[in-house]
Amino acid sequence: GHIVVAGFGTSNAEAVRELIARGNDPHRIVVIDCDEHALEDAEELGCNILCGDATRDRTLKDVRIDRACSMIVSGGRDDTSILITLTARHLAPGVPISIVVRNEDNELPARQAGATTVINPVSFAGLLLAGSCSGQHIADYMADLAAAGGRVKLSERVAAANEVGLPLQAIRTGIAVRIYRDGRPIGFWEAGAQAVKAGDMIVEIVPGDGETR
Amino acid sequence: GHIVVAGFGTSNAEAVRELIARGNDPHRIVVIDCDEHALEDAEELGCNILCGDATRDRTLKDVRIDRACSMIVSGGRDDTSILITLTARHLAPGVPISIVVRNEDNELPARQAGATTVINPVSFAGLLLAGSCSGQHIADYMADLAAAGGRVKLSERVAAANEVGLPLQAIRTGIAVRIYRDGRPIGFWEAGAQAVKAGDMIVEIVPGDGETR
Ligand SMILES: [Ca+2]
Ligand SMILES: [Ca+2]
Repeated sequence: GHIVVAGFGTSNAEAVRELIARGNDPHRIVVIDCDEHALEDAEELGCNILCGDATRDRTLKDVRIDRACSMIVSGGRDDTSILITLTARHLAPGVPISIVVRNEDNELPARQAGATTVINPVSFAGLLLAGSCSGQHIADYMADLAAAGGRVKLSERVAAANEVGLPLQAIRTGIAVRIYRDGRPIGFWEAGAQAVKAGDMIVEIVPGDGETR
Repeated sequence: GHIVVAGFGTSNAEAVRELIARGNDPHRIVVIDCDEHALEDAEELGCNILCGDATRDRTLKDVRIDRACSMIVSGGRDDTSILITLTARHLAPGVPISIVVRNEDNELPARQAGATTVINPVSFAGLLLAGSCSGQHIADYMADLAAAGGRVKLSERVAAANEVGLPLQAIRTGIAVRIYRDGRPIGFWEAGAQAVKAGDMIVEIVPGDGETR
C-alpha cells in the first residue's frame, strides 16, 4: 500500500523526509495540498502529488485512500485536519490515520473523528521541557528515539515464531520495552511479559540507522 | 535550587503542570511573563511569579538565575527566546537551559546562545508522524515515555555504588537504555556498557506514576 499525506506544511514535510530516511520509496507517498509551491517541494523529494482539497471525498477517492497502508494529516488548522480525518475514516474504515492537533481541546474530537494516533506538538514540547529539568539528557534521548537516524530508534514488529514462550527480556534483537497483546499494552514488569505469545506486537529499542552494530 | 520559567505560553504552562505532577514543589518554580493573565494562571498553580521582561539582566537577576537548578525558555518568538537564553547564560554560566524553537533554522543559534537542550515541537511532530506509519503504537509509547504519568517514564540518575562493575543490562531498577560517561553516550550494545563506572549517568525506563509496581 501507499502512504497518503494530507497537507504539506512544516510537520508533514518533516514527516515525509523522515519516511524517506526510514527507507520508504517516495513513489509510494502521495502528497495532497492546495498550494502549488508546497507541492513542488514534495515533488522534488520524489513524491506523487495531487493539487486538491483533502476534506473532499473526491480528492481522497482520487488517491485511493481505501487502499492506503496509512495516512498522516496536518492541515494547518485543527478544524481542517479533523474534517479530513472524518472524510478519510468514512471512505477507509481500516486505514491507520495519524493527525496533528495544535489545541489540547481538539485531541478528543480528533479521536472521535476516527484518528488512530493524535499528536499535539505543543503539549509534547511541554513534557520534554519538564523532563529536561529532571535529567539533562532526557530530551536528547527522546529526540534520538523518535528519529530513525542517530544512535537508536523505536521500532514495532510482530513477535517471531522462535520468540513465543520466551520472557520479553530474553529478546535479543534490541531492548524490548512493551508488548501489545490484543491491542492492550503489557509492561516489562507485568506477569504477561513473562511469556511472549503468538501475535504479540513487540515495541523495542534498536540501534539507529546511524549505527553499525 | 529553584526552576526559572521564562514565558508562560502553552508549552511552558504544560511544562509547569508536568513539573508539579513530577513532584516539584510549585513554590520552587518562578514564572516570568509580561502578561498579567498568564501570571494569574501560574499563580493559581502555586508558582512564584514575576511580571517583567526576561530578556533583561535586571529581571533575571531578580529571580536569582545564578542560583537556579534549571531554566526553561519559551518566549513565544524564537528571537525573544534566544535573547533570553543569551542573557541567562551570561549571568549563570552553569545552569542547564532548555529552549523551545519553532523554526529549524534557529536550532543552531539557540545552541550558540548557550542552550543546553533545544526542543523543536514541529520537527518532533514530524518524527512522530513518520514513526506512526511504521508502527501503530510508536507515537503512543513515545508520549507515555515523555510524561511522568501513565505506565512508563524516562528517568536519568547517577549510577549507584552497588551497580559499579555490573553490565548495563543487569540493572534492576528499570530497563537501562543508555549510559552517559563523561558526557558521551554509550549504547546498550557497546563495549562500554559491559561495566558501569562510578559517575556514569544512567538513562532508564521505569514504571510511570500511574503504575504501582
Ligand atoms: Ca534515532
Ligand atoms: Ca508516562
